[in-house]
Amino acid sequence: MLKFTKKISQKAGSAPGTLVHIGERKTDKPRITILDYDDVQLHEKQLERIEEAFPFKDSPTTTWLNIDGIHDVELIEKIGANFNIHSLILEDIVNTGQRPKTDDFETYNYFVLKMLYLDEQNDEVRSEQVSLVLGNNFLISFQEAEGDVFTLVRDRIRKGKRRIRKNGCDYLAYALIDAVIDHYFVILESIGATIESLEEELLDEPAQVTMQSIHELKRELIYMRKQVWPLREMINTVIRGELSLVHEQTIVFFKDVYDHTIQIVDTIESYRDVLSGMLDLYLSTISNRMNEVMKVLTIIATIFIPITFVAGIYGMNFKYMPELEWQWGYLAVWSIIVGIALLMIVFFRRKKWL
Amino acid sequence: MLKFTKKISQKAGSAPGTLVHIGERKTDKPRITILDYDDVQLHEKQLERIEEAFPFKDSPTTTWLNIDGIHDVELIEKIGANFNIHSLILEDIVNTGQRPKTDDFETYNYFVLKMLYLDEQNDEVRSEQVSLVLGNNFLISFQEAEGDVFTLVRDRIRKGKRRIRKNGCDYLAYALIDAVIDHYFVILESIGATIESLEEELLDEPAQVTMQSIHELKRELIYMRKQVWPLREMINTVIRGELSLVHEQTIVFFKDVYDHTIQIVDTIESYRDVLSGMLDLYLSTISNRMNEVMKVLTIIATIFIPITFVAGIYGMNFKYMPELEWQWGYLAVWSIIVGIALLMIVFFRRKKWL
Amino acid sequence: MLKFTKKISQKAGSAPGTLVHIGERKTDKPRITILDYDDVQLHEKQLERIEEAFPFKDSPTTTWLNIDGIHDVELIEKIGANFNIHSLILEDIVNTGQRPKTDDFETYNYFVLKMLYLDEQNDEVRSEQVSLVLGNNFLISFQEAEGDVFTLVRDRIRKGKRRIRKNGCDYLAYALIDAVIDHYFVILESIGATIESLEEELLDEPAQVTMQSIHELKRELIYMRKQVWPLREMINTVIRGELSLVHEQTIVFFKDVYDHTIQIVDTIESYRDVLSGMLDLYLSTISNRMNEVMKVLTIIATIFIPITFVAGIYGMNFKYMPELEWQWGYLAVWSIIVGIALLMIVFFRRKKWL
Amino acid sequence: MLKFTKKISQKAGSAPGTLVHIGERKTDKPRITILDYDDVQLHEKQLERIEEAFPFKDSPTTTWLNIDGIHDVELIEKIGANFNIHSLILEDIVNTGQRPKTDDFETYNYFVLKMLYLDEQNDEVRSEQVSLVLGNNFLISFQEAEGDVFTLVRDRIRKGKRRIRKNGCDYLAYALIDAVIDHYFVILESIGATIESLEEELLDEPAQVTMQSIHELKRELIYMRKQVWPLREMINTVIRGELSLVHEQTIVFFKDVYDHTIQIVDTIESYRDVLSGMLDLYLSTISNRMNEVMKVLTIIATIFIPITFVAGIYGMNFKYMPELEWQWGYLAVWSIIVGIALLMIVFFRRKKWL
Amino acid sequence: MLKFTKKISQKAGSAPGTLVHIGERKTDKPRITILDYDDVQLHEKQLERIEEAFPFKDSPTTTWLNIDGIHDVELIEKIGANFNIHSLILEDIVNTGQRPKTDDFETYNYFVLKMLYLDEQNDEVRSEQVSLVLGNNFLISFQEAEGDVFTLVRDRIRKGKRRIRKNGCDYLAYALIDAVIDHYFVILESIGATIESLEEELLDEPAQVTMQSIHELKRELIYMRKQVWPLREMINTVIRGELSLVHEQTIVFFKDVYDHTIQIVDTIESYRDVLSGMLDLYLSTISNRMNEVMKVLTIIATIFIPITFVAGIYGMNFKYMPELEWQWGYLAVWSIIVGIALLMIVFFRRKKWL
Repeated sequence: MLKFTKKISQKAGSAPGTLVHIGERKTDKPRITILDYDDVQLHEKQLERIEEAFPFKDSPTTTWLNIDGIHDVELIEKIGANFNIHSLILEDIVNTGQRPKTDDFETYNYFVLKMLYLDEQNDEVRSEQVSLVLGNNFLISFQEAEGDVFTLVRDRIRKGKRRIRKNGCDYLAYALIDAVIDHYFVILESIGATIESLEEELLDEPAQVTMQSIHELKRELIYMRKQVWPLREMINTVIRGELSLVHEQTIVFFKDVYDHTIQIVDTIESYRDVLSGMLDLYLSTISNRMNEVMKVLTIIATIFIPITFVAGIYGMNFKYMPELEWQWGYLAVWSIIVGIALLMIVFFRRKKWL
Repeated sequence: MLKFTKKISQKAGSAPGTLVHIGERKTDKPRITILDYDDVQLHEKQLERIEEAFPFKDSPTTTWLNIDGIHDVELIEKIGANFNIHSLILEDIVNTGQRPKTDDFETYNYFVLKMLYLDEQNDEVRSEQVSLVLGNNFLISFQEAEGDVFTLVRDRIRKGKRRIRKNGCDYLAYALIDAVIDHYFVILESIGATIESLEEELLDEPAQVTMQSIHELKRELIYMRKQVWPLREMINTVIRGELSLVHEQTIVFFKDVYDHTIQIVDTIESYRDVLSGMLDLYLSTISNRMNEVMKVLTIIATIFIPITFVAGIYGMNFKYMPELEWQWGYLAVWSIIVGIALLMIVFFRRKKWL
Repeated sequence: MLKFTKKISQKAGSAPGTLVHIGERKTDKPRITILDYDDVQLHEKQLERIEEAFPFKDSPTTTWLNIDGIHDVELIEKIGANFNIHSLILEDIVNTGQRPKTDDFETYNYFVLKMLYLDEQNDEVRSEQVSLVLGNNFLISFQEAEGDVFTLVRDRIRKGKRRIRKNGCDYLAYALIDAVIDHYFVILESIGATIESLEEELLDEPAQVTMQSIHELKRELIYMRKQVWPLREMINTVIRGELSLVHEQTIVFFKDVYDHTIQIVDTIESYRDVLSGMLDLYLSTISNRMNEVMKVLTIIATIFIPITFVAGIYGMNFKYMPELEWQWGYLAVWSIIVGIALLMIVFFRRKKWL
Repeated sequence: MLKFTKKISQKAGSAPGTLVHIGERKTDKPRITILDYDDVQLHEKQLERIEEAFPFKDSPTTTWLNIDGIHDVELIEKIGANFNIHSLILEDIVNTGQRPKTDDFETYNYFVLKMLYLDEQNDEVRSEQVSLVLGNNFLISFQEAEGDVFTLVRDRIRKGKRRIRKNGCDYLAYALIDAVIDHYFVILESIGATIESLEEELLDEPAQVTMQSIHELKRELIYMRKQVWPLREMINTVIRGELSLVHEQTIVFFKDVYDHTIQIVDTIESYRDVLSGMLDLYLSTISNRMNEVMKVLTIIATIFIPITFVAGIYGMNFKYMPELEWQWGYLAVWSIIVGIALLMIVFFRRKKWL
Repeated sequence: MLKFTKKISQKAGSAPGTLVHIGERKTDKPRITILDYDDVQLHEKQLERIEEAFPFKDSPTTTWLNIDGIHDVELIEKIGANFNIHSLILEDIVNTGQRPKTDDFETYNYFVLKMLYLDEQNDEVRSEQVSLVLGNNFLISFQEAEGDVFTLVRDRIRKGKRRIRKNGCDYLAYALIDAVIDHYFVILESIGATIESLEEELLDEPAQVTMQSIHELKRELIYMRKQVWPLREMINTVIRGELSLVHEQTIVFFKDVYDHTIQIVDTIESYRDVLSGMLDLYLSTISNRMNEVMKVLTIIATIFIPITFVAGIYGMNFKYMPELEWQWGYLAVWSIIVGIALLMIVFFRRKKWL
């Protein structure tokens, strides 16, 4: 099956709010980490049981609860019950086929977006769903597997004295979304590099392999665009101030993220245009080569076929063929042959084939 | 005739509100079932005559009246008269060429949409029209034939203690529409699987059959998009709260449906892009093969045509051909022939044809 | 000249409101018929002189004045003067190059649209301009020639006791516009049938004729879309209630017409997509055939050219050719020939050409 | 250089409001004519010096000042100073690379649009910039050269007793703009005629010339669309009543012009679609011809190459070739040859190549 | 790597507002120049240390501070601190991968756009980021390297008595933006000239080089469009009066700039259309040539292959070949040969190949 849809059909017809994990199981046991901080203090801990996290819910400090692995439906349900999350949102968290979007509820905001990374082995862009539940003084992030894009954010928090420590949960949400989207540029740059090397290859010696590579790149870009396009709308919702828990001073940072998403969309479109151009170039190169092949064949054939005929004539065994007896017959035939060949060459020169 | 239009021309010029069944007759006798329930009780019955259903109309419980088969115009008229349905709506119910849409009337809301299913025999996507008339405490659903997408909803109602039993008719309408749309994913996944197997086939050995399959898939997607596209607008109307009988707490569920329709539209577009890419790949593969064929011909021909000419020369029967008398003539000719052949091979190597 | 423009240039530079008939003269003498009715009575008459119609103008009954033939500029001017129609509207009535549109004047509304019909002889879609001037209790319709789409409406009026007799002029206008647009489906179905038969032909044996047919169908669809597209906008204006003389209870019927126009536009677009797909299929079929032709040539040529060379060698007349004297020479040559042929066949099998 | 841009670069970096004539100098000395009229009187004069025109500025009659030739920067500056025209507008008047637009200033409105005409010699669409400065009771028109589109308007004024004499300057502005746009239809009709003749040529005997003609037509349409597209927006601004000096009763006439511009845009798009279709048809025709050529070659070659080989065999000079001695050898060979030929013919018939 | 993205990935994950120079280092040491002027006086100076500029900040005169070279992060930070510029803006200044945009802050407005210039050596369009920080009576401009587009503006200031000296900083901002955008026309004209010469080359003798040139031009246009498209939006923001520091009387000049950006976008689109047309023309030319080549081969081959076969027949060495003994045999064979050749020629004439 193509990776453009998830096996959503598994739950077709089931009641809404039924939690069914859809997607690959990317980790064995969910890993729960908590990071509780404010301007002056910082607690970091890896939890064994989710219940340990619940006391932090109403603490005035900023609490970041990170869940790596979303296939443990029971765990998600516990979190949902404790943090009062709507069952449809819980369903979205475990169903990895979501389109990036944001939802505003009274006591929390929900963000879902895609982390893209390059699967080096298959040379494919893959996506992982990231869900953020932003509460008043907590933020819960759900990832399919332990990723490293969030590590840098974690480091910035740990280092302290940074802006991130002074700002609340909405700024943390911004920081995480920004980290995810910044990572798209890494992928775009890798694709850009591949396109460039393909282009060189194409001009050097176009082979069928190149064509398949172009096709695969195109598919990657179609896939990527499908993931990135709705992001614009999502971030735009934030900028328009439609989310109750994202404060004015954080929105200016989301504008920065918005600029990035537009740049990404622009670049994807430009790449698609460049690839289309490469395809045209490829096809015309193939046509040209064919033309060249045909010319060689035609030139050789049209020169030799007539003169071979002449030779054939004097290879006949008729009793009465006066030319055969002539003393200069052989020479005459050679003159005829050379004459025909020259004529043909002149003809081809006129046609600019030679 | 193509399946993109129904035989609407049959009734061109007739008065509006004239009930003429347009479409195939997919069932013999309409089957009428009723499901009347609330939080605590549940009545289920298959009716012989439609009149049995009328008493339920004003009962406070939720009444779901399902009609399988819409060619019995008289039956539809009776329902229309009893439930006060506008004649234009009745016309839409029996005319299966409708575009998905929703209409708001004071005492009821009308929904019409398409159920898509795979016709396994012809490997084609087919559609069946589903109409819903949502009243204050009743919902009438009209199908062309008995389908199985609604069975799961029926089961959820029967099982009781579920959300569906606690919510009213608008939630039931949501549940049915959701069931229909969820089923689209099944079809998309099947199409996705076909595309993938075609893609492999294409890379392995492209044959004309593949091309026709791509073409057919494209047509299916065109057909599907024509059915799905207006759905967005329809669900959007519901979300904007333009329907008087869909309550606030149900609208949040329709948002979920809306996300699904957008995902479906996105996926259809992505598939179309992928298929276009496959077409390009196919054409370039064909060109490449032709090129290869031509090269083989050209190499063989350009090597052998000149040397055959040489042999032809010395097959002539002139009396005075001094070379024929030379002792090493035959050997010399062989050297010439081998020389020419080598020259040609060098030439082709230079051109990178060998 | 292409049928996409009318000879509008004839009147370039003349003053606005100058009545110049633009279009073919499709009838000799304009035919004027009047139909005056209300709930209980009905008068129908064919008029000799337009002046006979003027008394009906202010009668409380619904008056339908139908003019077949619009080249009689004097007649149009008389009507314009008596019914107070703006000179620009009169100009639009006689100039058959109008885009479908609607205009709101205080005492009347103007509609202009295109009736499409199939010219069976040339297998072409042709259009005829229909103008409607809707007054308070009269409706004047202008056609280029006597058409039969309006006959069905006329019959409904004659039969009495129908909704059409109870409703006013705006409902009559709706009925006429609906009749015109319903007729588009007839054409679409005919085009759909043609596309399907072309598709079968294409899979059976693609010939150049098919290609031209695809091209012609495409042109018909371009033409049709040009006529239908502005209809959406026109009907939409009516639905938004921007026309002063179309009452609320009639607008619901126009919504039905709107659905039809959208369906028509959708179908046209789908047909265009299908035709584009057929074109691609056609081109790839041609390429495939060429490929096959080339393969046959290449296989035959590459097998026989080398062995013909071998035969040529031993047709040479050198005095000293030891092989010729060998007893098994002839047999040896045959072995060589068969060997070469087998080698070639193996080579082609490897390449999967055989 | 392509005609899509003017040599605007000449003035890159200069201060705004610097008057530099950009465009070809199409006339030697600007020709200044004045037409001053109202309902009853009419003065017409060709001026030697622009100063003669200034007294008319404040007369209550309608004054039409026409300037043919805009390269005389000094003249334009004088007019600008006397009529209080903003320096940016003066810059636009002399710079012929403007996009059609309209500007509203307190005491005057500015219109700039393109007059298109066919350059018969080069068979090209060319454009000339027309600027209108509409004051309260004067209108100044600037043309690059003396054109004949305005002559008809001038005649209507001269004839008197027409609507144009009773209406003010805004009506005159309308009349001039209408005259310019009506002329577009002349060009469209000419292009339509060319397309049709090309289409016939294409079906008769497609040659490379046709292809180049299609390409040139496409370029003309691209050029024309670039000029016409912004017109819609410009006229729309007028219709929305955004210009202070265009009165309500004149706006209804501009609506008529708006309809025309939309028709023009529609027709251009339709033509482009038709041309694209022709291109596809052309390419498929070429492919078909190639296919046919290849078939002829293949049939001839595959029949004769094998039988030539047979003849070659028995042209060998081996001492021991038993067949050569047989009495019926020669006949047998002929049978073999005929057999092979028949076999090939049957094969080709099977493949439907014959 | 393609030039469509900058190495933004370098700073993925770092905190917002972290200044990291992204882009090539185009100059060694930033060059700081200051131009302080009002209606009557003018000071111009090249600064060694940025601190010298700070006193000008609050002077009532217009101060233009120009920085050539943005890799010196420390310098940028100093400016930011002194002029109270938001850290996200500072980040945008040093990160050269920005999309053109404008931002409104209370005490200053920020503009970022791209200066395009032709890299003559590689025949490529290159871009340089220009940032403007517009304060109440100062304007700071940041360039990647010393460019010459601003020189003309500087000259206009120096000359005095010009409008630029009388207007404030917002007019200066306009003048700089106008200078940058006017320069785009220079590039468009150069591209237009290249397209035209390519077009001529294409009609004269299409070679693969032409095709690559078309491809490269297309890429340049894709790149340029990516830079220019967001400009429209940016200038539009200014026109709508959303920037607090751009005054009403300056906005009219920005309207002029807006017209230019639309013209540029239009021209880019037209060029893309023309290039697509050229590509089609090129491909059809190639096809035509191939066709011609094939025809020559086919004609020669189909004439000579059969007659060579005839000659081959009578080159056989059968003992009993009666024709060989006939006195007129040889002549008869010639007649047959000529007959076959004539037949073939007639056949080709019928097919219009000759």
